[in-house]
Amino acid sequence: MADDSSSLDTLGATAQGKLKSLIERIERLEEDKAAVAGDLKEVYAEAKGEGFDTRILRKVVRLRKQDAAARQEEEALIDLYISAIGGL
Amino acid sequence: MADDSSSLDTLGATAQGKLKSLIERIERLEEDKAAVAGDLKEVYAEAKGEGFDTRILRKVVRLRKQDAAARQEEEALIDLYISAIGGL
Repeated sequence: MADDSSSLDTLGATAQGKLKSLIERIERLEEDKAAVAGDLKEVYAEAKGEGFDTRILRKVVRLRKQDAAARQEEEALIDLYISAIGGL
Repeated sequence: MADDSSSLDTLGATAQGKLKSLIERIERLEEDKAAVAGDLKEVYAEAKGEGFDTRILRKVVRLRKQDAAARQEEEALIDLYISAIGGL
């Protein structure tokens, strides 16, 4: 199909449309990403304003994340072992 | 106020509440951040599935961002010069 043809020189109209749509979606998501990063920065600035040490705050957030991941992994292993022996 | 006291050893109830609220807000934003990152990954995977070179796609997105920033800066300078001479 001529419309769908693609080569190193030209992209067909369908491919052009897809590419534009993909790039627009990426750019919207990049905007969301920047907005979330801005919000995070604001919360940390607010925390600093309240007198909290943001370096320690970041460490606590990281530790909670690691702990949650470890607990999740443990629960998954418990489920695996239980199902391996045919249930409790 | 005893309730609001904070030292290296203990945080007052108010500070404790603030800290909890700040950490919860950070964790929600970190979840949003991860969700956006996941969505971006999906769009790039979809682009790859459509036969696009994602490395080139990332470069095009970056170039468009740089171009938009340059155009914005140029417009701001044009506005500055125009206002400096008292308008067009």
